[in-house]
Amino acid sequence: MTDFPDLDTPCAVIDLDCVDRNIRKYQDYCDLHGIGLRPHIKTHKIPDFARQQMAVGATGITCQKIGEAEVMADAGIRDILITYNILGVRKLARLRKLADRLTRLQVVADNETVISGLANAFAGADRPLEVLVECDTGGGRCGVQSPDDAVALAKMVDAAPGLIFMGLMTYPAAGGTQKVEAFFETAMAGCRDAGIECPVRSSGGTPDMWQAHLSPLTTEYRIGTYIYNDRSLMARGVCGAEDCALQVLCEIVSVPTAGRAIIDAGSKVLTSDLLGLSGYGYVVGHPDVAVSSLSEEHGILTYDPATVPFVVGQRIRIIPNHVCVVSNMLDEVHLTRGGVLERTVPVAARGRVT
Amino acid sequence: MTDFPDLDTPCAVIDLDCVDRNIRKYQDYCDLHGIGLRPHIKTHKIPDFARQQMAVGATGITCQKIGEAEVMADAGIRDILITYNILGVRKLARLRKLADRLTRLQVVADNETVISGLANAFAGADRPLEVLVECDTGGGRCGVQSPDDAVALAKMVDAAPGLIFMGLMTYPAAGGTQKVEAFFETAMAGCRDAGIECPVRSSGGTPDMWQAHLSPLTTEYRIGTYIYNDRSLMARGVCGAEDCALQVLCEIVSVPTAGRAIIDAGSKVLTSDLLGLSGYGYVVGHPDVAVSSLSEEHGILTYDPATVPFVVGQRIRIIPNHVCVVSNMLDEVHLTRGGVLERTVPVAARGRVT
Repeated sequence: MTDFPDLDTPCAVIDLDCVDRNIRKYQDYCDLHGIGLRPHIKTHKIPDFARQQMAVGATGITCQKIGEAEVMADAGIRDILITYNILGVRKLARLRKLADRLTRLQVVADNETVISGLANAFAGADRPLEVLVECDTGGGRCGVQSPDDAVALAKMVDAAPGLIFMGLMTYPAAGGTQKVEAFFETAMAGCRDAGIECPVRSSGGTPDMWQAHLSPLTTEYRIGTYIYNDRSLMARGVCGAEDCALQVLCEIVSVPTAGRAIIDAGSKVLTSDLLGLSGYGYVVGHPDVAVSSLSEEHGILTYDPATVPFVVGQRIRIIPNHVCVVSNMLDEVHLTRGGVLERTVPVAARGRVT
Repeated sequence: MTDFPDLDTPCAVIDLDCVDRNIRKYQDYCDLHGIGLRPHIKTHKIPDFARQQMAVGATGITCQKIGEAEVMADAGIRDILITYNILGVRKLARLRKLADRLTRLQVVADNETVISGLANAFAGADRPLEVLVECDTGGGRCGVQSPDDAVALAKMVDAAPGLIFMGLMTYPAAGGTQKVEAFFETAMAGCRDAGIECPVRSSGGTPDMWQAHLSPLTTEYRIGTYIYNDRSLMARGVCGAEDCALQVLCEIVSVPTAGRAIIDAGSKVLTSDLLGLSGYGYVVGHPDVAVSSLSEEHGILTYDPATVPFVVGQRIRIIPNHVCVVSNMLDEVHLTRGGVLERTVPVAARGRVT
């Protein structure tokens, strides 16, 4: 394992061979089961990777905010789902502009206020805006609370001249595949009774990615983390360390006392996300070392000094707990292949929160 | 309280009147007690605020990484302390270049490897590099473990032609003022016995900012958070909500069920930092509302629906748990005075982790 002396630490290095494998493997699974794959770009935020996902067979991409979609449209992506309630004249004007640049733009809505705003913004548009109704199937975040509520909003969308109802969207709780299926089934029956077509049923989430085929009503699956993977997915048994494409390269800057070393990566790179885990990352090659606490620019490693010989100046690599949020900390990342640095690319959609 | 309809949410709005008060008040305290104030720019990362801190009487600024110091040097700041062990030929070359642009550059070191590297890099420099020895007075992060170790490193610095020993630096644990004083006293005696002057004794930390004068050996105090303040300092009784200059303006995008609302600010703005608190922020005007969980782009508010009438589209403001890390999430912030937007400025030193 090279330690890239030409790179200043801390930084993120991404193994392109691993990225290729991760993208290919899940596209093959979706192809096998006839599920459309719509990767969420929140994990990488990099146009090149979005284009690669499309080239391998993705039906389109998913973004969370208009700002992310704008960056991806700039890069030539033409089919985008924004899985977010969009509100307010300023954002709706941006959305309208964005629609004109794409072959397909879809958004979601889970309440009447959002639908009214979308309808006003797209009244008189050349093409109606495609809308999915977001359903809470147990995730407890956004989404209508019942299939009946979903049908009521589907009718409202269907009645709005500038909008077209395309179906249902959910971000389920982990392990929630059966609940998704039950919710979709009842809501689809309600739409059918109302004479409304519901061609798209979109679910997602990397933790249950290999169970997607167990919800046959799901036509499309959205996942982000699978491109890089991370420690939280290792802990769930979804991947191994060798499947984790993004690693944080850092340096030991102090060994103040036996069994404690300080690295130059803190919460400004690794973030404070625990995702239910203990510690802030997995030290590659040292599974017994704990990344036990972080401040902004320091990480504290604790370990048995009898077995771990860390010294000042040594470089190590860390697989972060939650890789999506790490991408959002960095202006650029370094792409490698076969242990050799290929190029450095900007994280173009980093920080696009509006 | 205006809700700034011309700004897209989520975003950070900063009350300049409050900033002025916060800067002035602590400078007055330091002036009264004869303590040098060296503000840490990590909280704001904005050159204008660093210049304001200098203009009011700061002796210099503190940065954590070379990249931050480079941004501040670009902005005309000429006296900088980098409180970080700096290692490696690439970073040492940057440090040498930086020194040539400043009237004073100080760094810290807590081990022999770092001192050797600094000595090599500054051998033959026109001016020697000023070095403080970092002391662990209970913080448990970097720093030599005993006053004797501090004296040993002081001797090593003193013997290096390119370096000049300037004193001691510590980042104490909260409530650690007495330990700081005891550590400094013993280390200073050791230096005196070795015939080495120790003119600078630098301590810091916003939580104990009003106890700085209780360590009379401390010549200089470093604080960052005091310029904005945050919920963690409110919880410690250091400030009130009215002293918190940076607030996150966000919008309610969904009220899926009674007592739960979803805002458009998640961990990509507020971060997952808890700092020992429960919940992820203080909702201004609604002390009983909990920011109970965050995902990347969503925040979940929970509350008693009988008393809180949140509706979709409503704007609210949140005082974050830890304001320094929020600054690091945002490419720009909005400056206001008297409730009126004055201008939008880039967070110039955001993301400078190397």
